[in-house]
Amino acid sequence: MTSPARLDRWEHRAEWPLAAIALVFLAAYSLEVLAAPSGRTALAIGLVTRVCWAVFVIDYLARIWLADDRWRWFWRHLMDLLIVVLPVLRPLRLVRLVILVTVLQKAVGNAIRGRVVVYAVAGAVLLVYVASLAVLQAERVDPHASITSFGQALWWSITTITTVGYGDEYPVTTTGRVIAGLLMIGGIGLLGTITATIASWIVQRVAEEDTASQAATVAHIAELRDEIRALRAQLQVHDEVRT
Amino acid sequence: MTSPARLDRWEHRAEWPLAAIALVFLAAYSLEVLAAPSGRTALAIGLVTRVCWAVFVIDYLARIWLADDRWRWFWRHLMDLLIVVLPVLRPLRLVRLVILVTVLQKAVGNAIRGRVVVYAVAGAVLLVYVASLAVLQAERVDPHASITSFGQALWWSITTITTVGYGDEYPVTTTGRVIAGLLMIGGIGLLGTITATIASWIVQRVAEEDTASQAATVAHIAELRDEIRALRAQLQVHDEVRT
Amino acid sequence: MTSPARLDRWEHRAEWPLAAIALVFLAAYSLEVLAAPSGRTALAIGLVTRVCWAVFVIDYLARIWLADDRWRWFWRHLMDLLIVVLPVLRPLRLVRLVILVTVLQKAVGNAIRGRVVVYAVAGAVLLVYVASLAVLQAERVDPHASITSFGQALWWSITTITTVGYGDEYPVTTTGRVIAGLLMIGGIGLLGTITATIASWIVQRVAEEDTASQAATVAHIAELRDEIRALRAQLQVHDEVRT
Amino acid sequence: MTSPARLDRWEHRAEWPLAAIALVFLAAYSLEVLAAPSGRTALAIGLVTRVCWAVFVIDYLARIWLADDRWRWFWRHLMDLLIVVLPVLRPLRLVRLVILVTVLQKAVGNAIRGRVVVYAVAGAVLLVYVASLAVLQAERVDPHASITSFGQALWWSITTITTVGYGDEYPVTTTGRVIAGLLMIGGIGLLGTITATIASWIVQRVAEEDTASQAATVAHIAELRDEIRALRAQLQVHDEVRT
Repeated sequence: MTSPARLDRWEHRAEWPLAAIALVFLAAYSLEVLAAPSGRTALAIGLVTRVCWAVFVIDYLARIWLADDRWRWFWRHLMDLLIVVLPVLRPLRLVRLVILVTVLQKAVGNAIRGRVVVYAVAGAVLLVYVASLAVLQAERVDPHASITSFGQALWWSITTITTVGYGDEYPVTTTGRVIAGLLMIGGIGLLGTITATIASWIVQRVAEEDTASQAATVAHIAELRDEIRALRAQLQVHDEVRT
Repeated sequence: MTSPARLDRWEHRAEWPLAAIALVFLAAYSLEVLAAPSGRTALAIGLVTRVCWAVFVIDYLARIWLADDRWRWFWRHLMDLLIVVLPVLRPLRLVRLVILVTVLQKAVGNAIRGRVVVYAVAGAVLLVYVASLAVLQAERVDPHASITSFGQALWWSITTITTVGYGDEYPVTTTGRVIAGLLMIGGIGLLGTITATIASWIVQRVAEEDTASQAATVAHIAELRDEIRALRAQLQVHDEVRT
Repeated sequence: MTSPARLDRWEHRAEWPLAAIALVFLAAYSLEVLAAPSGRTALAIGLVTRVCWAVFVIDYLARIWLADDRWRWFWRHLMDLLIVVLPVLRPLRLVRLVILVTVLQKAVGNAIRGRVVVYAVAGAVLLVYVASLAVLQAERVDPHASITSFGQALWWSITTITTVGYGDEYPVTTTGRVIAGLLMIGGIGLLGTITATIASWIVQRVAEEDTASQAATVAHIAELRDEIRALRAQLQVHDEVRT
Repeated sequence: MTSPARLDRWEHRAEWPLAAIALVFLAAYSLEVLAAPSGRTALAIGLVTRVCWAVFVIDYLARIWLADDRWRWFWRHLMDLLIVVLPVLRPLRLVRLVILVTVLQKAVGNAIRGRVVVYAVAGAVLLVYVASLAVLQAERVDPHASITSFGQALWWSITTITTVGYGDEYPVTTTGRVIAGLLMIGGIGLLGTITATIASWIVQRVAEEDTASQAATVAHIAELRDEIRALRAQLQVHDEVRT
């Protein structure tokens, strides 16, 4: 019965170290794609990448081992497994970096809308950056590619996540198109989150506008209950006085 | 007066067999488009397709016959009729496969948002797959077509349903453009559903955030009613004591 | 003080005749663009068009004359004025046809969501059709135009209103681009309306899911008020008995 | 403790002068891009631009000096700083003009939805105009540019903010692409705001539809409280009579 607490404790303690490792991983991947190093540097970067990946595998195994109902945890965290297990598809591995956003989100405070906006913006920025790196790595080796520099990759990512899609640049390799698909799904999620946040804000402001037609709140009900309790007390006193 | 029950019973019993037949139909259609068989195989697939279609016609007729108010049922299920009656426009027939999603949806549970998300995601995946098959079948016979392989068709479907629309590939035949139109409507519906689900989640979380300014619920009203009933009981006792 | 009633009466009575005239206008415009008639037919169509336009001018003048506060009505119906006054920009005139949707909407019933969906769908279909006609008329005389047939115009309209925008066809004339802009605004409105309708449906279903945590309604409050009134009556009887 | 009042007073007094200066700035920038003046006119426009910019710097400094908690104000108005400090990236400076919308918004009244719609529409129109000017200025000097006239720039802005993105015209310079990115973010915000406003309207209308199942409001609770108070008064009188 103490396992959920153990899992929570693990996640709480592992949070900052994992974020730091994800940052190292991002830096190594950025270097690998943008500087295209060779010789010893390439070997060192490859080692760093593999060590980071090993840490994420250990974290995944630790969490499933600490989970109360392992089968249920497995199904609910299928995405985590895919992210850990698919290192052959190199670019997809970096989606793991959203863990950094979770950390950032904690720094913002507790207001739901503020946290949602921070999450959406940070997630979008990270996704654009990582997708640009991944698509560049996948495309530049193809002779028909139109995306051959990081600037072009970044421009393509932005036109894709916003669903504008000019079509001046687009991926031609299968890996590049898988990354594009994930980026488009990210775009839909981003659009949806921003719309939803604005909608929630408008609904609340409309309700606040006219106080009389505002929705009755728990505070109003509490006030009423106090009135009724005062009435009961009055009746009690009235009875006791007469007895 | 027992007819609605009979219609419900039919729909309940026919659910799994119909889902199985839809799967067979999808398999046969996939084979037909992707393997482009000839001779005996083509004949066998044609037969399977026609048998599946006949079953769907029987299901439609059975449901309209069992309906309480047939005229009203007819108007409310016009889409079902179109799907059954338009086998000449082969690709459109496959939209019928969303029946599988309904079955999947039952396995998920009762939470509205979870079911809506499953329905939207499964529907989008199915729509992308079926539209890719249909557009490939329609386009590859046209000399000016840019969509000539299943990979290209899938890539085109994804850029269309997400409304990105690079324009590197697009249908040139009328059938292909009708399929594209349906896919775009699917894209709008998908975008709308995801946004709406996020909006509903945010609205609920914002309301839960500050307990005092939360909307008064039926549970709160029930609590108040109990207070008033206790007061009435108190008054009753008070009267009886004095009498 | 009776003017608003007079304006309402006018609008109620003029509704069906105006819808009929709008239909005639649409038919005449369709013929003009699609059949590109010459000689007598062209003259007849020109006459029909001008008569329809005169009727709309009369309706506008009648409504502003019957309005209680003419200045306020003028500002609130600025769009009506623009639609009536800009016959030089021929295609824009046809936006006036949304009046037909208003009529259709009445036939649907009173449920807000149903009416909104009918309005959005009918409006989108009408806008796509009218924009296709208008863009074809504007583009086909330009030597660099890529939109030269009604089929191409329709395909372009659909890719534009859904914001997909492949870019295989696009207007090159100023008139064509003004129509494109209106169509894009229509697309944003369509997307927004569909999303909003789904959102409203999900919010309601989520609320219905758990009866205890459902929002307190007027019906619940009425029930409570009856409890309190019963209590007052009880106290009244108790007083009268003792006196 | 009087500082917030001082900051408010400053903002209230500076509002109209700042709006006037922003208008002058817009006019100067429009002239500079559209008329491409030379000699004395160019010098005069450059002077006007620099004076306007100096006024905005003074306003920023005045506000941070008058703020109660300067550090907090600094973080919360980071965007203001970026707009003031980045005059090297000329086009971005003009985003400052949204101040005009704030002024317009005041003239509309207090209804949240009306104000939101005015803000979104005015903001979109301003953004399209300013982005067209800025992209034209950035692109026309590049030999590979497809955007070389104001008409083309305007058409490109509209297809971008609506996320249609035909791809017939697109920026090729880095400055042009930064402007495009801001315009796309504006487009997402515009889409989100319109959807949210429609959603809020539908949610409210659905609630108003069925009076009995309408959410309990503060007015209903107030009515109930009056009933309970009447009951207490009745009990009081009853006690006093018997004593």
